[in-house]
Amino acid sequence: MTISTATSATAPEPLVPRGLTGVVPPVCTPLTPDLEVDVASLLRLVDFQLDGGVDGLFVLGSSSEVAFLPDRHRAVVVDAVMRHVAGQVPVLVGVIDMTTLRVLDHADRAVRAGCAGIVATAPFYTRTHPAEVELHLRRIAERCDAPLYAYDLPVSVHTKLDPQMILRLAADGVLAGLKDSTGDDAALRDLLVARRDAGLTSFSVLTGSELTVDSALRMGADGVVPGLGNVDPHGYAKLYGHACAGDWEGAGREQERLLRLMRIVQAGSPTRMGRGSSALGAFKTALRLRGVIDHAVTAPPQIPLDDAEVDLVRNTLVATGLL
Amino acid sequence: MTISTATSATAPEPLVPRGLTGVVPPVCTPLTPDLEVDVASLLRLVDFQLDGGVDGLFVLGSSSEVAFLPDRHRAVVVDAVMRHVAGQVPVLVGVIDMTTLRVLDHADRAVRAGCAGIVATAPFYTRTHPAEVELHLRRIAERCDAPLYAYDLPVSVHTKLDPQMILRLAADGVLAGLKDSTGDDAALRDLLVARRDAGLTSFSVLTGSELTVDSALRMGADGVVPGLGNVDPHGYAKLYGHACAGDWEGAGREQERLLRLMRIVQAGSPTRMGRGSSALGAFKTALRLRGVIDHAVTAPPQIPLDDAEVDLVRNTLVATGLL
Amino acid sequence: MTISTATSATAPEPLVPRGLTGVVPPVCTPLTPDLEVDVASLLRLVDFQLDGGVDGLFVLGSSSEVAFLPDRHRAVVVDAVMRHVAGQVPVLVGVIDMTTLRVLDHADRAVRAGCAGIVATAPFYTRTHPAEVELHLRRIAERCDAPLYAYDLPVSVHTKLDPQMILRLAADGVLAGLKDSTGDDAALRDLLVARRDAGLTSFSVLTGSELTVDSALRMGADGVVPGLGNVDPHGYAKLYGHACAGDWEGAGREQERLLRLMRIVQAGSPTRMGRGSSALGAFKTALRLRGVIDHAVTAPPQIPLDDAEVDLVRNTLVATGLL
Amino acid sequence: MTISTATSATAPEPLVPRGLTGVVPPVCTPLTPDLEVDVASLLRLVDFQLDGGVDGLFVLGSSSEVAFLPDRHRAVVVDAVMRHVAGQVPVLVGVIDMTTLRVLDHADRAVRAGCAGIVATAPFYTRTHPAEVELHLRRIAERCDAPLYAYDLPVSVHTKLDPQMILRLAADGVLAGLKDSTGDDAALRDLLVARRDAGLTSFSVLTGSELTVDSALRMGADGVVPGLGNVDPHGYAKLYGHACAGDWEGAGREQERLLRLMRIVQAGSPTRMGRGSSALGAFKTALRLRGVIDHAVTAPPQIPLDDAEVDLVRNTLVATGLL
Repeated sequence: MTISTATSATAPEPLVPRGLTGVVPPVCTPLTPDLEVDVASLLRLVDFQLDGGVDGLFVLGSSSEVAFLPDRHRAVVVDAVMRHVAGQVPVLVGVIDMTTLRVLDHADRAVRAGCAGIVATAPFYTRTHPAEVELHLRRIAERCDAPLYAYDLPVSVHTKLDPQMILRLAADGVLAGLKDSTGDDAALRDLLVARRDAGLTSFSVLTGSELTVDSALRMGADGVVPGLGNVDPHGYAKLYGHACAGDWEGAGREQERLLRLMRIVQAGSPTRMGRGSSALGAFKTALRLRGVIDHAVTAPPQIPLDDAEVDLVRNTLVATGLL
Repeated sequence: MTISTATSATAPEPLVPRGLTGVVPPVCTPLTPDLEVDVASLLRLVDFQLDGGVDGLFVLGSSSEVAFLPDRHRAVVVDAVMRHVAGQVPVLVGVIDMTTLRVLDHADRAVRAGCAGIVATAPFYTRTHPAEVELHLRRIAERCDAPLYAYDLPVSVHTKLDPQMILRLAADGVLAGLKDSTGDDAALRDLLVARRDAGLTSFSVLTGSELTVDSALRMGADGVVPGLGNVDPHGYAKLYGHACAGDWEGAGREQERLLRLMRIVQAGSPTRMGRGSSALGAFKTALRLRGVIDHAVTAPPQIPLDDAEVDLVRNTLVATGLL
Repeated sequence: MTISTATSATAPEPLVPRGLTGVVPPVCTPLTPDLEVDVASLLRLVDFQLDGGVDGLFVLGSSSEVAFLPDRHRAVVVDAVMRHVAGQVPVLVGVIDMTTLRVLDHADRAVRAGCAGIVATAPFYTRTHPAEVELHLRRIAERCDAPLYAYDLPVSVHTKLDPQMILRLAADGVLAGLKDSTGDDAALRDLLVARRDAGLTSFSVLTGSELTVDSALRMGADGVVPGLGNVDPHGYAKLYGHACAGDWEGAGREQERLLRLMRIVQAGSPTRMGRGSSALGAFKTALRLRGVIDHAVTAPPQIPLDDAEVDLVRNTLVATGLL
Repeated sequence: MTISTATSATAPEPLVPRGLTGVVPPVCTPLTPDLEVDVASLLRLVDFQLDGGVDGLFVLGSSSEVAFLPDRHRAVVVDAVMRHVAGQVPVLVGVIDMTTLRVLDHADRAVRAGCAGIVATAPFYTRTHPAEVELHLRRIAERCDAPLYAYDLPVSVHTKLDPQMILRLAADGVLAGLKDSTGDDAALRDLLVARRDAGLTSFSVLTGSELTVDSALRMGADGVVPGLGNVDPHGYAKLYGHACAGDWEGAGREQERLLRLMRIVQAGSPTRMGRGSSALGAFKTALRLRGVIDHAVTAPPQIPLDDAEVDLVRNTLVATGLL
């Protein structure tokens, strides 16, 4: 696991090693036209990320279409990536499912494969009390021999994790970290200050917001899990490097370039497809156009980008220097 | 499959046989204290339902804790119930999962087990366009050799099925029926009138609302899938029988008794547990108190009823003549 | 006030007079092309309602565009209608505003004008605790010399009234009644049974759901506040008359005709206008086509129906026998 | 109006004067125990703000309890503040109401009183189409002789303003600026970059997020409308001063102190009161404890802080150096 002593602008020097830091992209899952995992493309994508200078990988997250992959696909992904990475960087594995027992099945497989950590959301589909959310995370941590990261993603899960619970679970050693995909940077900052005050230096807080990475790092976040990092890992690594070096001007410039690149997620027409299909379709289309993966196929029932929408992606890649 | 010529108060006599009708309870999944499927209790519960006079069974629905059951538990349930029922009544199987490929895996298993139909929701966790919801249902129907029922459950899925889409899929033979758990009886009625106008007589519409079954049947619904039917199948069968006989006074009286029974779902304190845990805990507690199943255990992370809450359930059972 | 001894199918005979009953349409507010209240049209509309056999009138409700009317328009409406009706039927007045002090200003004006009751929602725009909703209603009732009706309209107010609070306020004499526009007929029925059990016979419960009036009356509701009643008061009066006479077949037939008429609210394209604009535009268009009011003008920023959409309304009126 | 040439870290030097910039607190409305506007306290609060170095004032915003104030209170506030400030800083006036005609009435009064700008939300209570939101803002701007600021506050209005619409209205001169209270800093940044690309240098973008002001200014925002600024205007002025001077370390430190102060908004127990009541009660309590206003009274139906909750506010003021 990446150990860093980099500090945010306002944070005191940590006395003990910190947890996971840096750029940890949620790796897309390339598919073949007949909807199998395209392992060759997947491994090229992993190499592309490693070459880009990322600090870790997160497989089977939302950007990996985890919600669309049957269990056999999930297994193929974990096995292929773990074997290929072979310890070069930590690999986190998403164990996304509705409730505890189902999550534990995914977690068992991930732990057996040797992952550096598992990433779980609150329960979904069900109507769950905050005390039950906490019980869910405690049960998972008890059962699994791998660090547990909480994944706060209200847009999918329809529950927001309570910050007091997160801090409690961090203090109790239940959680190793948090991926914050709420988009609520004020709440993130409050948590970061509370974490520092509580001396939870080894509890890792990663933002999932692609467009405010520099601000999040200034506030004390440890890193970022950017879906867009699939398309431009070098950009996020550069941004993070500037931040670590205290070059916030440079970090801001790179963040703005990535912001313009991020507009590819709007390529798919909202009258034809969901916002998830547009974003995931655009990421895969960009990776295909950049020569990293063979097909931009997304899993059903996602509607693919049409030719005009692919052109929008291509034009944005050209405009941001990636083609 | 139950074939009925019963008509609603205002509907013309159907010229062709109708689809699934009557009382089709979503069967609870009894668990042992170590969280395995309690097959003996499950089969007693199935017998209790059949003895109660139900017209079909729905396993692996929301009241079955399907969202809480790992795949191996799902398989145990389907196999045990299919073998035990052995064609006495049609058995529908829920194939609840996030998206198409995952649903298809569940559907394949259900079809191989010989189910009378599968029941699928819209995608969840993902952000899905209505066109993608339609594609999802069409893909499932294309692939599966069993009638497909759409399950409209916005409280869990966070998507409401479009009634125009439902009618279109009914007309195209994609859907065999609908379980409407929206609680929106005005929209249900509009759909029922449109169904009649379109002559879709074999398309079965079942309400999932436990408290307005008599009204739904008057409006032309074909039956009901009542979670509370687990606890009192005889009551729902009686209600349905009154309705078929045109005795709406009797149906109303029975519905009111069941309404009072339904208050058990509020037994669990909202300061301690989610509304789902309260309802499912109450159903299982009532079944245990009635001697049908051995344990009221619910799957994690659901918090169980405490002693005072169990007493509330017991008192309600006494007050409604079930204990 | 209309005093009725009509009972629902299953309710025991009330021992004391009941509160407001029957058909109480929320009267549209006709506007001139320069956005003043068209008083002549308004009074014709009132006469049309009275002629249709309604049991009361509700001015300044949501169907009256109350949210769109400046205070001077509200005053014109109340004064004109109160003077014109002159006690023929009870007139309720909506006092729709964000919070207590603002509501009290509207209520003072309505009480001075001699209304038979005021109708208030929970606070909106603000983030209000249930205890504050209760305080709000208690404050209004304390201050106002007119019966207070609670208006449960989550689609606008984004808060659902707690049924236990409603029953408590009814028992305490704070509330004279409820207009239930939640569309949740199961919860309505639970409330109606609880009301009967508590002996709150003078507490009036009116449904705001245009399409399930017969069912609501069977369940024990006292009447209906149908926006669609503007267009066809005779139809709702006929439906209510059938119900009072125990002719539920006739009530169901009339309800189905009104259901088909209700489809005018979908006339306006969802790609061009909000669902409120479509519904209110359709009501006013239908009233203009029926010769009751002079203009179908709705208040800004509502987008009006175009010619093709007006034709849809016209065709529906023809199909349902109103043109 | 404050004209500034301050630039964000990454923005090019503007060629034309910019719009409103700096710290523009939404001024609380002190009330007497009998719920009249406490004008003496209000003017002391205004002086406290001016003494604190703010760049403008915003009266009748959400933190002013605008949703709780009857029109006569609104008039007292506007008249008293406009007369007292007498042009020392620009005064914006909130014209918060449900729809266009009601907003125009408030706007007329504000313009007659000589305000520097009016601040309007999207319609609320109604179900409004984006095209109708745009029409609403265009109508207001056409009718009013004062710059119009859009107020994006989904937590109250339940509608998010479309960024493309905002840019269109800025380009057309309809909007002079935006108060962004969405808490979505990624979307804010995207808007700020698009604004710069479009050369809309005089269109003012102010964040309403109290806890990410330094980040927002770095991203190019022009200023902040902090509810918490009521309690500590000097703090926000200092933060803004550091930012203008390019001292982002200093800005971050001050922001973190204000973040700790912000925790007063959680003083009121969520089991007793709404989050709005807690926040507004805490602001007023802090102002009373600091000797600025006479009473911490909030308008009904808001539940006030109890003694223990007041102590929490006091302790936080002490801890952050304000008492």
